[in-house]
Amino acid sequence: MSTAPLPFAKGHGTENDFVILPDPDGALDLTAQLVSALCERRRGIGGDGVLRVARAGALVRSGVLAELPAGVAGDDWFMDYRNADGSLAEMCGNGVRVFAHYCRAAGLVGADEFVVASRAGPRPVTLHSWDDGAAEVTVAMGRARLDGRSTVTIAGRELTGEAIDVGNPHLACVVDGLTPQTLAALDLSAEPVLVAGRFPGGANVEILTPLEPDAAPTGAFASHLRVIERGVGETRSCGTGLVAGAVAALHRLGRAAGVVVMTVPGGTVTVTLRAGQSYLRGPSRLIAHGEVTGGFPGR
Amino acid sequence: MSTAPLPFAKGHGTENDFVILPDPDGALDLTAQLVSALCERRRGIGGDGVLRVARAGALVRSGVLAELPAGVAGDDWFMDYRNADGSLAEMCGNGVRVFAHYCRAAGLVGADEFVVASRAGPRPVTLHSWDDGAAEVTVAMGRARLDGRSTVTIAGRELTGEAIDVGNPHLACVVDGLTPQTLAALDLSAEPVLVAGRFPGGANVEILTPLEPDAAPTGAFASHLRVIERGVGETRSCGTGLVAGAVAALHRLGRAAGVVVMTVPGGTVTVTLRAGQSYLRGPSRLIAHGEVTGGFPGR
Repeated sequence: MSTAPLPFAKGHGTENDFVILPDPDGALDLTAQLVSALCERRRGIGGDGVLRVARAGALVRSGVLAELPAGVAGDDWFMDYRNADGSLAEMCGNGVRVFAHYCRAAGLVGADEFVVASRAGPRPVTLHSWDDGAAEVTVAMGRARLDGRSTVTIAGRELTGEAIDVGNPHLACVVDGLTPQTLAALDLSAEPVLVAGRFPGGANVEILTPLEPDAAPTGAFASHLRVIERGVGETRSCGTGLVAGAVAALHRLGRAAGVVVMTVPGGTVTVTLRAGQSYLRGPSRLIAHGEVTGGFPGR
Repeated sequence: MSTAPLPFAKGHGTENDFVILPDPDGALDLTAQLVSALCERRRGIGGDGVLRVARAGALVRSGVLAELPAGVAGDDWFMDYRNADGSLAEMCGNGVRVFAHYCRAAGLVGADEFVVASRAGPRPVTLHSWDDGAAEVTVAMGRARLDGRSTVTIAGRELTGEAIDVGNPHLACVVDGLTPQTLAALDLSAEPVLVAGRFPGGANVEILTPLEPDAAPTGAFASHLRVIERGVGETRSCGTGLVAGAVAALHRLGRAAGVVVMTVPGGTVTVTLRAGQSYLRGPSRLIAHGEVTGGFPGR
């Protein structure tokens, strides 16, 4: 039973929400049990995951990281992301925006362009605007790789999509004739059934409307998307899923580049594909900060 | 858009969780919009409701209360309870424990027995133990009134129970042969269908196992209970529902008094009936405190 204060902040990116733990020296014993207790919504703070904010080098020294990931410097701020069940995850596209926003608002970095280190490597970020509560952030998400077509059955309906690797596997299904209204009305409560053997570790499944010209006269496209995350079910937003959706929708028009304004249940983001790279731009909100107190499990 | 800091604490009683707002002078403009934004689990702090902590007299002066409820003094700490949807509620049995714990831990009161004022009148409380995180609290819940038998249909099964008024209406169904295991396995996702016209404003429905002697040799009984709150669905715990369940179960044995250790999905409490009065004893946890920051809606 520890009584050391545990400072935290809470934030979200398109309603993908996180408990942020400032821990520059990587001194916190961030067990799976502590992570899941923090993320529990009634007995804890509540969140989809935990973002520990530590120097990459400190996490190597404390043994959390075996070594610095390629391209990461010891002084970089490292997003030590944990899922709500306490498991490790390499990347979280919405989490990077919130992490970058926190680093800037808390004064850990002094510029609007910097690198967020992660288990998946460095992720360059740009803060277009920010204050202590709201920010607009672009994250360079790396290369998304098309990997052929496949099908998925959901609620008795077979859909065809593009298999896409964004560091994690996706099947992104653009559905002819689907509108924002008919998409919103779909019952996605059943688990999607993928083709046996096609995705050995499972895949996230996106369902989206065909691209339309965006309302703003920018040359951009617009689409509405819903995502079912493997092992989780439908979520309000998924950063890599948004990239996969944009790749699939542009590919269908024969394009490998372009700008897509994507609307998900949790909000709106913009995905840009250019020169083989993908960029995710969207909002971050920091809504509260404080300290975990004595009634918290294990404190 | 206000930028005034908004301090909060978060706590729960048997996993019925609350955002606590210290506001001694009743100065906060606690709109339904602010309450629902605070209770939102991804974009806000998250909670089943808000407990504003204010002097009763201050709430009369600021117009929140038209007058002091009968038996309430101006200097009493008033539990201004709001449901997560922003609506008013007169009472919340689990909320009173957390409210009392907060008042004591924050130094607003200097004794372990005092009165918590509410729209339903004064509620005497006793803190049996407390620190900054955990407390064990008894609340005098007043008189529970038996009001005849009725039936409810849930998931195709008709159950018979006692109609009981604990300030709000309940139908508490003790089910012969039901065990903790078979109770836990019941599908309570469908809305219960009450007898038409019997409860004009609806009712909370409790399903519970018949009384068994408690494992501890105290002369107390034990029961397991699940509750479906009107307009909400199943919850982890409901203070008045626990009282109603104990009244129905003791009544079935021809008793108007007794002690029942009640286990709900959110934890364990003890209900005592004595001399026509009901008492609810159970845990409170204060898990965090902090300030709402700029990214919070409306701030």
